[in-house]
Amino acid sequence: MDKPNIVTCTAPVNIAVIKYWGKRDEELILPINSSLSVTLHQEQLKTTTTVATSRSFQEDRIWLNGKEEDITHPRLQSCLREIRRLARKRRGDGDPSVDSTGLSHKVHICSVNNFPTAAGLASSAAGFACLVYTLARVFGVEGELSGIARQGSGSACRSMYGGFVQWIMGKKDDGKDSLAQQVEPETHWPELRILVLVASAERKPVGSTSGMQTSVQTSSLLKHRAESVVPGRMVEMIEAVQRKDFAAFAELTMKDSNQFHATCLDTYPPIFYLNSVSQQVISLVHRYNRHYGETRVAYTFDAGPNAVIFTLQQHVPEFVQVVQHFFPPETNGGQFFKGLPVNHAALSEELKQAIGLEPMPKGISYIISTKAGPGPCVVEDPTLHLLGSTGLPKNTV
Amino acid sequence: MDKPNIVTCTAPVNIAVIKYWGKRDEELILPINSSLSVTLHQEQLKTTTTVATSRSFQEDRIWLNGKEEDITHPRLQSCLREIRRLARKRRGDGDPSVDSTGLSHKVHICSVNNFPTAAGLASSAAGFACLVYTLARVFGVEGELSGIARQGSGSACRSMYGGFVQWIMGKKDDGKDSLAQQVEPETHWPELRILVLVASAERKPVGSTSGMQTSVQTSSLLKHRAESVVPGRMVEMIEAVQRKDFAAFAELTMKDSNQFHATCLDTYPPIFYLNSVSQQVISLVHRYNRHYGETRVAYTFDAGPNAVIFTLQQHVPEFVQVVQHFFPPETNGGQFFKGLPVNHAALSEELKQAIGLEPMPKGISYIISTKAGPGPCVVEDPTLHLLGSTGLPKNTV
Repeated sequence: MDKPNIVTCTAPVNIAVIKYWGKRDEELILPINSSLSVTLHQEQLKTTTTVATSRSFQEDRIWLNGKEEDITHPRLQSCLREIRRLARKRRGDGDPSVDSTGLSHKVHICSVNNFPTAAGLASSAAGFACLVYTLARVFGVEGELSGIARQGSGSACRSMYGGFVQWIMGKKDDGKDSLAQQVEPETHWPELRILVLVASAERKPVGSTSGMQTSVQTSSLLKHRAESVVPGRMVEMIEAVQRKDFAAFAELTMKDSNQFHATCLDTYPPIFYLNSVSQQVISLVHRYNRHYGETRVAYTFDAGPNAVIFTLQQHVPEFVQVVQHFFPPETNGGQFFKGLPVNHAALSEELKQAIGLEPMPKGISYIISTKAGPGPCVVEDPTLHLLGSTGLPKNTV
Repeated sequence: MDKPNIVTCTAPVNIAVIKYWGKRDEELILPINSSLSVTLHQEQLKTTTTVATSRSFQEDRIWLNGKEEDITHPRLQSCLREIRRLARKRRGDGDPSVDSTGLSHKVHICSVNNFPTAAGLASSAAGFACLVYTLARVFGVEGELSGIARQGSGSACRSMYGGFVQWIMGKKDDGKDSLAQQVEPETHWPELRILVLVASAERKPVGSTSGMQTSVQTSSLLKHRAESVVPGRMVEMIEAVQRKDFAAFAELTMKDSNQFHATCLDTYPPIFYLNSVSQQVISLVHRYNRHYGETRVAYTFDAGPNAVIFTLQQHVPEFVQVVQHFFPPETNGGQFFKGLPVNHAALSEELKQAIGLEPMPKGISYIISTKAGPGPCVVEDPTLHLLGSTGLPKNTV
């Protein structure tokens, strides 16, 4: 058989601080409001994707986390179709860098996450960003790709950039102006730290696709939020990021998380993503900040009970001790801290008293400590390809 | 000493189905939106108040549930002042029915509830309604009294009438047009039943006075709700009550409860009144209704975790079995069912499976079964006075 053309790339997870919830177009994935996110560092959380093309391949195939999946999934097909269309267009425009021989070839795609699915993090954002970025490399497509990633999974468009990223909702019916844009690079705010508090899963939450459909159909508060609240918050949030104003950034992040969950509750039937562990984290953060008389820590929650915490480097050691105190972990095995190393800090009795919550044993499984990071990258080392020279996964689960 | 003039009255609790949350005037207790409630039957839940006046009394005094309380409480003073002002006005107008001799006398007030405070029900509504109604009798004041009760506790104005009651928010700055009005009497919908599911209290929730202040100050969704959502809902709800359209009444009730709690979550810092027991009741009701393909049961929650359930008489026996199954009560003593007797019903495996929730043992302490009832009443039997001929409470705790 022909030696396949193989490319491997990685892409990051992103966490929205101004939330996206609700589509105005389900097919093209056009949102009812703009949103803004922080790209997490790939050292802690990333998707790796290898794409191979070969004349010998009989059909498009995909393996996700070691298991072959259905390639006919409509959103996967959208991304494949769009990339191939752009590649054909470039060839038609006479760009010599496009390898026209491979254009008619079938693709094999293999993708894995370096973080457990149980983390409940929006893996589809990193997944589709990585898919689109890798396919573009394979087919020699350059330029704006967030509009294609968006058609795989809305928030994937924000994972196409590092640092602080806005997804501008756009106005056009064809979605051409609904794109992600970097607000500031990952080097802009080096003191910012992110802690992912993985809640011990109690039950599977409502999926975000069906959840936001129901919300758009039934919540009048969501409509108001999208039209009258978010536009102002986007401006405020961009300014807070640019000024590196932690208190402003943190308060707006918390308010926006709360408002998103409020619109879920205003949905009929209501959707609950926050559980008692999430409520305890929220109380803990507000009491911690109140104790110090300043906003040192912020929470945000996506469509699940896990908290993502923002704070500054200097406050990390104490705050993780606080978390460990109020969510005593399982003692028998399992690593509680993952990611960037955290120095030990002592916890004062005064602070414990000021917070004054009843500890919830085992409420949190583990903490991943990370920071803002770069956008998608090409992996140059060929030994790291997930597909072998036969075009099949090197490792399957 | 002079024989005191003694009057005893009772007044009901009410449960809002279109919620009141947020004041436009803290002093006069003028709301930012209209609301609508069902008056609960006094056989299950009532406040009894005795007021005595005598030339011999040295000062105004009050005993609540057997304990003397501070009479200088501003809202108590508002009610006393307003009733005395109206009485003086009537005397000035030359109404012969006003007993002008008692007008300068001090009052002794004694008030008790026939339901445990632990029930977490809005006892201040029944309490202030009863106070105002009884004072009015003592001082010979007649006519519209809901505007005075409102100044004791906003929702108390709705407890001045039986059946289905709206509190029209009014527009005037002096609050003269912010009054309660009966929509339909308690005889209008005899099949309607109400179950109070008293959640095992975990923690004391945020008080409603301070909670709604924070919400008005910080929640943009609350403002939108008051201005743009509630006016339409009031019209819809009144029509649903008048048509006795249970499905319409029930759905609007659930949506409005959810939206109120959504605005609490949109408050900064957020307020949580719903806990995991409340969330389980909400899921249970929606799954129960879905199983039957019709809306047979509705929930509503005030500023606490207790659910109030509306249903029709025919569905009560089965639904209470459902509650008992998914919230297995404590086995060692304690009465689980209180109030109107409930027939036994069998619970099909099919229904249990369809609901499919994990039972929460002891999540609910007990259920009070009741129905719509009348407004405040005079107690004619003098042996039932709470104050003796000395003007002091007959029983103190």
